[in-house]
Amino acid sequence: MQPIRLGLVGYGKIAQDQHVPAIRANPAFQLVAVATQGQPCAGVENFKSLGELLESGLHVDAIAFCTPPQGRFALVQQALAAGKHVLVEKPPCATLGEAMTLVDQVAEQGVSGFFAWHSRYAPGIEAARDWLATRTLQSVQIDWKEDVRKWHPGQAWIWQPGGLGVFDPGINALSIATHLLPLPMFVESAELRVPGNCQSPIAASIKMSDARHLDIRAEFDFDHGHDELWSIEIRCVEGTLRLDNGGALLSIDGARQTVSEEGEYAAVYRHFQQLIATRTSDLDLQPLRLVADSFFVGSRASVEPFYD
Amino acid sequence: MQPIRLGLVGYGKIAQDQHVPAIRANPAFQLVAVATQGQPCAGVENFKSLGELLESGLHVDAIAFCTPPQGRFALVQQALAAGKHVLVEKPPCATLGEAMTLVDQVAEQGVSGFFAWHSRYAPGIEAARDWLATRTLQSVQIDWKEDVRKWHPGQAWIWQPGGLGVFDPGINALSIATHLLPLPMFVESAELRVPGNCQSPIAASIKMSDARHLDIRAEFDFDHGHDELWSIEIRCVEGTLRLDNGGALLSIDGARQTVSEEGEYAAVYRHFQQLIATRTSDLDLQPLRLVADSFFVGSRASVEPFYD
Repeated sequence: MQPIRLGLVGYGKIAQDQHVPAIRANPAFQLVAVATQGQPCAGVENFKSLGELLESGLHVDAIAFCTPPQGRFALVQQALAAGKHVLVEKPPCATLGEAMTLVDQVAEQGVSGFFAWHSRYAPGIEAARDWLATRTLQSVQIDWKEDVRKWHPGQAWIWQPGGLGVFDPGINALSIATHLLPLPMFVESAELRVPGNCQSPIAASIKMSDARHLDIRAEFDFDHGHDELWSIEIRCVEGTLRLDNGGALLSIDGARQTVSEEGEYAAVYRHFQQLIATRTSDLDLQPLRLVADSFFVGSRASVEPFYD
Repeated sequence: MQPIRLGLVGYGKIAQDQHVPAIRANPAFQLVAVATQGQPCAGVENFKSLGELLESGLHVDAIAFCTPPQGRFALVQQALAAGKHVLVEKPPCATLGEAMTLVDQVAEQGVSGFFAWHSRYAPGIEAARDWLATRTLQSVQIDWKEDVRKWHPGQAWIWQPGGLGVFDPGINALSIATHLLPLPMFVESAELRVPGNCQSPIAASIKMSDARHLDIRAEFDFDHGHDELWSIEIRCVEGTLRLDNGGALLSIDGARQTVSEEGEYAAVYRHFQQLIATRTSDLDLQPLRLVADSFFVGSRASVEPFYD
């Protein structure tokens, strides 16, 4: 089989740290081009823009998007119009309207599309899904707490309108929870704590449920000091499942379980490969929809100004 | 043909003023039951809840929902599970997640569903659509300004989390604009002005566009004194179309045009009748999606406290 010839748009930290190593480790893909306005990527053709890449005549089957979500919509549409398969980093777009439109346009073009919620591919997630499949769920508690100064130093965009604030990490937790639970989740209420000098929340408490009235609560905190807490605990009639370290660790009733040894982005690209092979798509809007609904119905409280 | 046997859930102001007269004036419908916890509706069977109505054994083909959007989701699901056609007042649900789920569930049940954006049936709208169909659009200016004290006296829920504030009338304008324009609309940015003692905006400026980069702007104001302004002006290469009075009046280049003489709710129920006859649905999420995205990406400025 010929490898899938892949172009990458955006060559920042996530592309360099995660995408390029995962692509190069997977023989099903061949990285042939990068579009970036920053430093070039060694060993491939570099272009200043996706437009230049598409017009170059270089044969490319698929495009992966690692640019910021603002402005990504038009780029993905450009790739779709050229008939390319698309992988889109999280969150897929700046608004739900853009993301919903991409879902329709992928279907119209008949290509494979993938909104890559990478946290769903953390080592413990598949084993957690397997265990939960036959259990009776009682409640879900999500705690996603970290120090923004450590993990996003100087990233002022996070606090601006359309920046997600604490939902930037929180959407990862929501992408896992929606992947673990059998029914769609809904926001019932949310409290957003917004620093007086910011537009986006630094902390949030969210009450959610599903069609069976499952009690789902999330605590997001971006000002948590140096001991990160990225956990999801699901109480079932038969026992309690707990994911820690963002899904890397899994325990059942306190006993550590064996998990996958595959890295998140290795699994992301393996899934993209399968989507292309079967001409299917995986374009789940649910994590973004939960964030938008939290902003929509959430109450806001002003808290101390934030200084990086 | 047998008339469609209709039940009404919620018998507040909008049901009494608009729904019941429109239903009774349309021989295709027969109003057979009302579910309400308030004063009963004369001439039909009254029930305390939708559950009682459905369990009563009374034959009902379709249910119209006029309760507040909070809590409506579960009620509509109850009617769908019983195989009834559903008409849902605007806005259809409290969150986009709920509304998106209803779209799926209507399709699964194979009944007819209708999110009744009533402003789309204002007298000037069809003529406006006809005129616009062959024109080249240049820009859209929406001005939706009214006095909340006059139109929503004492309605504290408007200002609470999940209350729409000025988007409660504004969503009517968005429902018209999305009906007039040929392509989906997207929120690019929004400024929400929120009274210091409220959770929802009293005024908003929204910048939108579509896939052809049409310049679409909306000004919503809920503190506008007594001269209401509910207008949409669409500049085209061939001339300027203007809707006034919420779509009741239509002019082209300043010349008043002939419009429909049918009332909004008469047209709403005529459309519902057609949907049921053809076993089709009309469940447009776009107006609610634009509101949710405005809250999601909008910047907020605190303004003077609001007192009713």
